[in-house]
Order: sequence, then structure tokens, then C-alpha cells
Amino acid sequence: MINNQISNEGKLQHLITTEGISKELITKIFNLAESFLKVGKRDVKKVPLLRGKTVCNLFFENSTRTRTTFEIAAKRLSADVLNLDIPTSSQSKGEALIDTINNLIAMSTDIFVIRHPEAGIPNYIANNVDESVHIINAGDGNNAHPTQGLLDAFTIRKYKKDFSQLKVAIVGDIKHSRVARSEIHALSTLGTSEIRLVGPEIFMPDDISQDKFQTYNDMKAGISDVDVVMMLRIQKERMQKDIIPSEKKYYEAFGLTTEILKHAKKDAIVMHPGPMNRGVEIQSEVADSSQSVILAQVTFGIAIRMAVMTLLVDKNI
Amino acid sequence: MINNQISNEGKLQHLITTEGISKELITKIFNLAESFLKVGKRDVKKVPLLRGKTVCNLFFENSTRTRTTFEIAAKRLSADVLNLDIPTSSQSKGEALIDTINNLIAMSTDIFVIRHPEAGIPNYIANNVDESVHIINAGDGNNAHPTQGLLDAFTIRKYKKDFSQLKVAIVGDIKHSRVARSEIHALSTLGTSEIRLVGPEIFMPDDISQDKFQTYNDMKAGISDVDVVMMLRIQKERMQKDIIPSEKKYYEAFGLTTEILKHAKKDAIVMHPGPMNRGVEIQSEVADSSQSVILAQVTFGIAIRMAVMTLLVDKNI
Amino acid sequence: MINNQISNEGKLQHLITTEGISKELITKIFNLAESFLKVGKRDVKKVPLLRGKTVCNLFFENSTRTRTTFEIAAKRLSADVLNLDIPTSSQSKGEALIDTINNLIAMSTDIFVIRHPEAGIPNYIANNVDESVHIINAGDGNNAHPTQGLLDAFTIRKYKKDFSQLKVAIVGDIKHSRVARSEIHALSTLGTSEIRLVGPEIFMPDDISQDKFQTYNDMKAGISDVDVVMMLRIQKERMQKDIIPSEKKYYEAFGLTTEILKHAKKDAIVMHPGPMNRGVEIQSEVADSSQSVILAQVTFGIAIRMAVMTLLVDKNI
Repeated sequence: MINNQISNEGKLQHLITTEGISKELITKIFNLAESFLKVGKRDVKKVPLLRGKTVCNLFFENSTRTRTTFEIAAKRLSADVLNLDIPTSSQSKGEALIDTINNLIAMSTDIFVIRHPEAGIPNYIANNVDESVHIINAGDGNNAHPTQGLLDAFTIRKYKKDFSQLKVAIVGDIKHSRVARSEIHALSTLGTSEIRLVGPEIFMPDDISQDKFQTYNDMKAGISDVDVVMMLRIQKERMQKDIIPSEKKYYEAFGLTTEILKHAKKDAIVMHPGPMNRGVEIQSEVADSSQSVILAQVTFGIAIRMAVMTLLVDKNI
Repeated sequence: MINNQISNEGKLQHLITTEGISKELITKIFNLAESFLKVGKRDVKKVPLLRGKTVCNLFFENSTRTRTTFEIAAKRLSADVLNLDIPTSSQSKGEALIDTINNLIAMSTDIFVIRHPEAGIPNYIANNVDESVHIINAGDGNNAHPTQGLLDAFTIRKYKKDFSQLKVAIVGDIKHSRVARSEIHALSTLGTSEIRLVGPEIFMPDDISQDKFQTYNDMKAGISDVDVVMMLRIQKERMQKDIIPSEKKYYEAFGLTTEILKHAKKDAIVMHPGPMNRGVEIQSEVADSSQSVILAQVTFGIAIRMAVMTLLVDKNI
Repeated sequence: MINNQISNEGKLQHLITTEGISKELITKIFNLAESFLKVGKRDVKKVPLLRGKTVCNLFFENSTRTRTTFEIAAKRLSADVLNLDIPTSSQSKGEALIDTINNLIAMSTDIFVIRHPEAGIPNYIANNVDESVHIINAGDGNNAHPTQGLLDAFTIRKYKKDFSQLKVAIVGDIKHSRVARSEIHALSTLGTSEIRLVGPEIFMPDDISQDKFQTYNDMKAGISDVDVVMMLRIQKERMQKDIIPSEKKYYEAFGLTTEILKHAKKDAIVMHPGPMNRGVEIQSEVADSSQSVILAQVTFGIAIRMAVMTLLVDKNI
């Protein structure tokens, strides 16, 4: 995908996908996020880095959860936040969409956080705005969800340090998952030694080179001896009917239970982008166990989003 | 109801119900609210007591009105505010609800203001979060609405001073009213000499000891010689069909009119938690009369909510 | 229309309509807006003029766009903003509406920005609140939209300076347009030498004296030699069926194309209040041409709204 997320000066101009983002830039984002984690523990959890700036959450797909994390991140940076939930039914594509965006730019919006059910829309918008404006893709179709990919990689770094010795299993409906795509790109760039894709054959992606990655249709083999188990949410709305006979059968084959988890390394961590379907892709006991870092992911997500917004806007970092 | 709203150190940890809150604590809340009333009259109506804190309004039941008062109170304390309106249809109970809450906690939310159509949910949540997090019940089923109960008692204190000489009539559908329950507990604790429950027999509560309170099925007798008339909103959605033959008949029997009000003391005050059904439970002339303190209740409500939030978060008060 | 938008001391108390606003006051608003335009270009785009004040956007008619401009304007002045979208279905008129407003006033709201599908509602409210409260009409039925009228006149002043030599054509459905009414009043007061109303006969207004204005049912003649072409949005929801045979026929007769625009002066500017129906009332090439000042209108709109809010609240200007 052609996109202009890196300016000619090498600065982050937009964040559309983790594909093509350099290891140096990812490390810069992570280090900045580390410093913001400390802010989250202070009594006054605000820094003035985006004071007087306006962040517009433009969500064409319903998501209280993701919108909320961006809203908190922006407010913690002292930005003003606009929340616009636009049902796609009332939205045409292309020109009319650009009119909406250009209107908001004329109101001096600095950052747009955009979620859209159609792949490519945030990139299209990024290619049609002037350089004072920054786009963050908060999920487009099954293409990318870069801040989620980054926060997941950041979470692994917090718990496992060295990517070069790391075995990671991504489990579930990889084919329809923008989260998986963004994770795979970030983890590859960071030099993860082994990335496994685990799930039923119909959930294996067509567009991700399966040569570079090992694929497993068997859960036990797939997570055997891994350091990290990244579960994906079963996205019922993206599946064709009758592909999965029943939630119960899926759980039997690919649900992460205490029993199954024993096949991973003893100190393996368990991740999930949320919201979880307990009893469908993950057992409650596992979700709430000491190996689970699922809530830590949420906390780290705020810091990562603060770091990305700061890098987009600040000219001196 | 077992709840953990008071910590082992005697501090207010959550506010779930006015039941069991001591006279000392209520007085502390009232005195703090008095100081915030002055803030509301200043040119710059903000104090920095909750700067850097995040207040999340989590409303599973529609209420622009109550949510707005909490939002204003939090902003006046300089907190950041998140508004999440969650239709109960899209929400399961128990575990999934706690997942939602835990996610918001992982984003460093400090206070949750929760309204839920089902009694007990805010208490359940309070019992399942760690101690850095504070829950305010903004109304759960027909159980409790403690900030309303407190602001009503505060209003009475502003106009009548001494509770020990006071006759108060609560009029309407007491059976289904969380407001009435919270008023009764607060007024009892403050030593109100006489609390009367007035309404048709079918609206008298089963769960409130009618030995301690006098009940009246006749309006004139019920408000005769009282100092305070607290009207309740007729909650059409909570009534079974055919219990009340018609709004007109209800108004004839229990509507508060200028004529009926003459049976109370001459300087009696008239209260209503709003929104009023004019011509159903209260006559417009009475609502707008000099005896009405209905709009003062709203103003005091902001100060009470500021006081409660401050006491929850501040370690030094 | 009788309204009390100017206080006895000659100060702006409410902004309900541009009708009857003096040239001096409009000029004062414009000069203040000029100073706010500079704020919009600063790195920190905030001024503390409304700090501690509360602005309530009360929208009884859906409008993300207009509400957003008021929200940005208020936040840039450091006010706290409440957004209340109230479907008219759940709202009765008169007394119940005043109850809602009085409740919000009791919460110390300083400015209400009100949009309502029915003409006259903002004025009715202005006549029923006390003098500490200020109402801005953000559009009422087909009556008035004064901040839009002012920002359009301001835009013309920015590009054309002298109104006394100016020919302006307003094109489209003038009959149903509150924007057109507010433009006409503002431009007349500012001494615009010629205001032309252009559109099919059925779109010519009954309530605007057609003696004072020239009306044209022919597009070429209507915009011939003008300095400013102000296009109106075709408001499909306000038109009776079958009045316009088709969008295509309307476009052929009254759409602004590059060809048609040649009949205006060479340096004529093209305006549109947005959102545009490209290919219905305006050709894309014209909307995006160098003669178009449509996005500048949006930017100026923030400054004008900041100026109006400041004049309403500030006692010293």
C-alpha cells in the first residue's frame, strides 16, 4: 500500500499502518510511551504537550472502547477533543467524505483519528489533506489497526525484552483481523524470531505470505513452547455463515484453556485485544490468571496513543 | 444491603446508598457543599481539586438530566469527563460488565458514576474493583439514588435548619421510587421528627418499615401541618397497567394544587426531584410559586455532587 | 419579530436574528472576530475569555456540523461545553421546554446555543430566562441563522472591503432558507448596494419585500456582473414534492458551473454555507476553484462565533 505516513524529513506525518514503519521509529514511539506510563501513575495525570491542539475522533464504525482510549490519551496531553460518530449510511465516499474532512480542517483540527469499515479510507484521506493535518488510522476494514499492533508489541517488550529469541503464536481468525496484520508487521520489523499463525484453515490469510510464517491448524502444536499467545476476538460480524459450526466446537478446537496453555512455555504471557468473548476464544480462568497481561495492554494502549499523537504534532521530537 | 462504601479508615470509598451513612459524614458532605455553592457564584466557576483525574459517566439507563449534573460537577472540579451511554440490550451482566469496568480502570478512571435499571449493579461493581477506584450510584432500579437523597436533605437544611422539629411529607409512588428510599434514609439519620408517606395504598412500599413512618392514603391529611412537601415524579414506565385509572384521577386525589397546599404550614416548602409532570402530580402554579424550591434543588445538586466526588478522591479531607 | 436581543444599556444580550442589529454592533463583532482569527493561527489556539463559563449546545435538530463549530469556538475561549441532542419527539413545547432550560440555568449555564426545527423557539426562550443567561439562535425553522449570516458578511468584507459598491446574488431556495434571511438582513444593514435573489419563481420568498430586492428567475441574468455569488444548499427535506422535476433539471437551470460563473465579474467570489450537494446546486470544479471561498467561510465562522460569545458574556467590551 502506497502511503505518505513518513515525511521527506523522515518524520511521522500520519499513522496508517505498521507496514513499513522502521525499527528506529517504533523504538522511538516505545521510549516515548515509557515516559508517558509514568504520567499515568502521577496524581495529576496531565502534560501540556498538545495544549491548544484539537483532536477529532471520526468514527464511521461503532466503537466506544477504542474511541475512549484515544479520547483519554488526547485529554491527558491537554488537547481539546471532538467526538464525531458518523453512521456510514449517511456518508458517501470520496468527494463528500473529503468535504467533511476539509470542513473540519478549516476549523483547525490538528489530528484526525479515523475508524472506517472500508479498508483504505484513512489512507485515501491522508493523501488528500495538507501537511498541517495528521491522520491516525484507528482501524479500517480488515486492513490495519496500527496503534493496536504497536501497543501489543510494546506489551511484549515490557514482559519479554528480547524479540530475537521470541516465539509468538497469533490465534484465531487471522484472515479477517486488522489487529493481526498490524501485529505481524510490527513484530516482524522488531526481529521476532518466530511468528506462528494458528487457527482453522478457513481463517488463514491469503494476503500474508505463509512462507515467512508457520501456520498451524492444530492448537496444541501451534502454541507449543511459545513465549507469547496472542488471542484474537472472534468477529462474528465478519464471518460467513456456516463456516464455524458452533461457538462450542470452536472453543473445543481453538479456545485457550488452562489445559491447553500448559503446552506453551511456563512463563508465557497471554494477550487479547478485547473485548473478550469468554468461553468462545478464551476461558475465564486464563483471562484472569497471572499469565494474562490483557489489562496491562489497555494501560499501555493509552501511553502508545499519547506517544503517537505527540510525535505527529511535535516538531522537535 | 452489604456494601463497602466506608473504608476501614472510616473514609467514604463509594457512594451506593444513603442507608448506613452516619450523621457525621452527611454533615461533612453538607459543609463541603456549602463551600462549593460559593464557587458557583464566582466569575470563574472552577476549582482544581480533581485536576488530572478522570470521571466516567457510565449510564445504562437514559438520563440526560442526571448525567449533565454529574458532568458539570466534575468539570467544575477540573476533572476530565468521559460520557459512555451503554444501552442495556448490548450489555450482559456480571463478568462482561466487570470486563468493561476493568478496561476503563486500566485506562486510569478514578470515579465511575453508574446508573443502571437493575437494583444492585453499582454495589456489585463496587465489590469487584480495587481500592483506587470509586463508584457513585446515580440510580439503580428502584433501590437507591443517594446523591438525590442527599441534595434533598441539604435543601431542607438550607431552608428549615433544625431537623428535630420537622414534619416532612413524601408524596406519590413511594413503592417504585429510589429517590424516596434515599430521602427516607438520609432524613431519618439526620433526626427528622416525622416522615410521612403519602399516596394511594398500591404505592406504599413493602420494604420500608411502615411502623416507623406514618402512611396516609388521603392527601389533605397527609400534608396537614407539614414543613416540607416532597413530591415524586409519576414514573409511568414503572407502573403496572390499570393501577391508576387515569392521570386526571390521580391529579384529583394526589396532585399538589394551591388549594391542597393550604393544609401544610404557611411557610412549607415544595420540592420535586424533576422532571415534573405538570398537571399530573403538581399544579403549575405551585411549581412556580414562591414556596417552590425546585430549581434551588438543582443548583444544590451540583454542589452536593462536587462534595461527594471530592471526598471520594481527596485523601486529606 | 419582537425580541430582546439588545439590552437597555445597548449591549448584546441574545443573538436571535440579524434583523435589527445595528451596523455599529456588526462592525464590533467583525473587529473582534479579526483578532480571534490570529488566535486560530497560533500554536496554542486558546484564550481564557470564557474560563469557568458553561456553554450548552441544545440541538433539537440534528447538526453535527454547526454544533461542532460552536463547540470548537467555545473550547477555544476555554469554556466548558455541554452537548445535548434532544430529539423533538421527546420534547413538548412551551412550559416543558422552559422547565428543561430552567434546570440547565440552575446548573449555572451561561450561554445556550439552540437549534430548533420550529421558528420562534429561541426567541421564546430568550423572553423567558433571566438576564444572566444568553441565547444564541443556531437556526430556527426557516426563520433565522444569525451567526451564519454574520460570518457570510464577514467573509465578503475580508475579500471585497467596500459594501457600498457591491453586487451580491443569493441563488437557490430563498423561500425556505433561514441562511438567506440572515444574510439579507446583515448585508442590507451594512449598506450593500445591490442584493439579488435568484431562483425559480416557487423559491422566491413571500415575506421578504421584493421591492427592495431584484428577483431573477434566470441564472445568467441573475449573476451577471455581480461581485459575490452566494449559493444556497438545496434543502430536500423542506421542499414539497414535485416542485422540482429533478435534480438534473435544477442543475441545468440554476447550478453554478464554470460556464455560468463567467457571467459574474472576473474576480467574483463564490460562497456556500455547506454542506454542498456537488452536481446539484454547484459544480465540483467551481467549488474547488480559486474563486471559491467556501472553506474560508468555515474558518471565519469559528472566529465570528467566538466574537459573539465573548460579547454576550463580557461586561467590559
